[in-house]
Amino acid sequence: MKINEIGEFGLIDLIAGKVKRSRKYQPAAWQGVKIGIGDDAAVWQGADNIELATTDTLVQDVHFSLKTTTWEELGWKSLAVNISDIGAMGGVPKYALVTLALPGDVLVEDIVKLYDGMLKACKKYQVAIVGGDMVTATCTIITVALWGCLNSGDPLTRSAARPGDKIAVTGFLGDSAGGLALMTGDKIVDTSLTKYLRTAHLHPEPRVNEGQFLARIGVKAAIDISDGLVADLGHVCQSSKVSAIINTEKLPISPRLKQVFGERALPLALFGGEDYELLFTAPATVMETVKKESTCPITVIGEITSGKPEKVTLLDSRGKVLYWERGGWDHFLSSH
Amino acid sequence: MKINEIGEFGLIDLIAGKVKRSRKYQPAAWQGVKIGIGDDAAVWQGADNIELATTDTLVQDVHFSLKTTTWEELGWKSLAVNISDIGAMGGVPKYALVTLALPGDVLVEDIVKLYDGMLKACKKYQVAIVGGDMVTATCTIITVALWGCLNSGDPLTRSAARPGDKIAVTGFLGDSAGGLALMTGDKIVDTSLTKYLRTAHLHPEPRVNEGQFLARIGVKAAIDISDGLVADLGHVCQSSKVSAIINTEKLPISPRLKQVFGERALPLALFGGEDYELLFTAPATVMETVKKESTCPITVIGEITSGKPEKVTLLDSRGKVLYWERGGWDHFLSSH
Repeated sequence: MKINEIGEFGLIDLIAGKVKRSRKYQPAAWQGVKIGIGDDAAVWQGADNIELATTDTLVQDVHFSLKTTTWEELGWKSLAVNISDIGAMGGVPKYALVTLALPGDVLVEDIVKLYDGMLKACKKYQVAIVGGDMVTATCTIITVALWGCLNSGDPLTRSAARPGDKIAVTGFLGDSAGGLALMTGDKIVDTSLTKYLRTAHLHPEPRVNEGQFLARIGVKAAIDISDGLVADLGHVCQSSKVSAIINTEKLPISPRLKQVFGERALPLALFGGEDYELLFTAPATVMETVKKESTCPITVIGEITSGKPEKVTLLDSRGKVLYWERGGWDHFLSSH
Repeated sequence: MKINEIGEFGLIDLIAGKVKRSRKYQPAAWQGVKIGIGDDAAVWQGADNIELATTDTLVQDVHFSLKTTTWEELGWKSLAVNISDIGAMGGVPKYALVTLALPGDVLVEDIVKLYDGMLKACKKYQVAIVGGDMVTATCTIITVALWGCLNSGDPLTRSAARPGDKIAVTGFLGDSAGGLALMTGDKIVDTSLTKYLRTAHLHPEPRVNEGQFLARIGVKAAIDISDGLVADLGHVCQSSKVSAIINTEKLPISPRLKQVFGERALPLALFGGEDYELLFTAPATVMETVKKESTCPITVIGEITSGKPEKVTLLDSRGKVLYWERGGWDHFLSSH
């Protein structure tokens, strides 16, 4: 069977199972591991604190196009998507390794711009680029490995959602997908709107402080929204063995996304992906404290239930179930 | 200018300089960093111990060919080359992130074999695969990020060689390059010889225990031989601002390499690369202790000098200088 027949998540499940089974042959190596494959970041017990690590890759013409993205924007984003993974666990990002696979005819000045973007993200989020690798390839691929530590609380995980928890998100949803749609020629609007949505896609600002705040205040379950709200909530439900209901009328959609996309704003917010906002769940009392003390906008959009496992139900404003087919982005499935 | 005009090392120098200059804008982020870009692994001060991290990438048809390498061998090697980098700093490898860039038509069973090879290396060297990423691409690229810690002594670095130090290596040199030459159709010999040399290339056994032993006993300078003896000794000389003399007659060359390649064995040992043996330097007294207490073969092959900076001089058995042009492997230079 080919990998595009079982898809990215099928292949990850298969490998995760294989790696998990190997643990019994090397118990010493796994002794300190708290979270392995399957969350936003790996977590282990360090000598004196909890440590985290993650890696994320951007492939030319899969994750970005050099026709619509500048090298500097690409640099920012390649760091930001990794920083977001550490943030989604409540961690503090610290040290990065950068691997570049590059065709030989890429211009040196473009690589300088790429690092300009990376170093801007490093400056904002206090990350140090301490190493990496450089290889030739037929297209540009940027891989960042990032680790960090946990300053307080437990790591936020995908597996800690419990029935009765409220579901909330930070910020707005769908702007990034709107920006991508505009860049790929979807629609032309006035410049300030284009700029706002394009920036949402190319210059995401990971919620690192918010993740640390959530961990400190006692929230246990979170994920960053990279595959899309419904898909990522699905990941949480799968890991936590629960289900979820979303009241779609409550989704935080920016006035600007509505202005440009009208009724299409809702599907963009539900399925669009790459928002890099945090999706988290907590009991109602904890959620009240979060809403009171958070310095960024928090919107409660639904509830975790004990219904049919791993099912995400979407309700419209009258409580009627909305049916949907596509749940996000899967890299290998040939049907996409 | 295109990157294949300044080459891999030119580009790394340029980026390392840029990253270094950024340190002054973010002193807090760099506070704990002991070694950044430019050694086998990055080193920082953790909460209670010294931590290390490295990353290494294998690209299809650049670093390996699926015509001559099985998926399982590829899995072993992708871990081993990273484990070797941690070993060369005297560290203990611990946790790995594995990123696979794969064409959609790769077979699932081949990825299973790839992980069989990885998990064998994990078992032998007590490494846990705790996460990774998976993306589509036009060719297969395997990136491993690995970190570890230092149990005793200081990290072994490229920058600690001093004039008067003896230069030594572990094991044999050139077998891996011999294996590669055989696999790419260079020569046909009897099966046991082919197997031995092929294994040296595809199944390197990183010198992790030896690296830890060297750090413990007080050796300060080391590198693993991946680019080739002369090239890697050149890296040490460059970082340490010293020069080196190699007595080529002293190089540890296996009888089997000599049997197959005759006079070509020497250039293979000097320039071949991918031996993953350790090259290290130490004052004569320390070197005596190393030779006495080491459990693996150690050969002294030359001496660090204060001559013309960064120059590696090769002497033949009569003390005559041998001239050479090519110093190893550079990924981007179009002349190769």
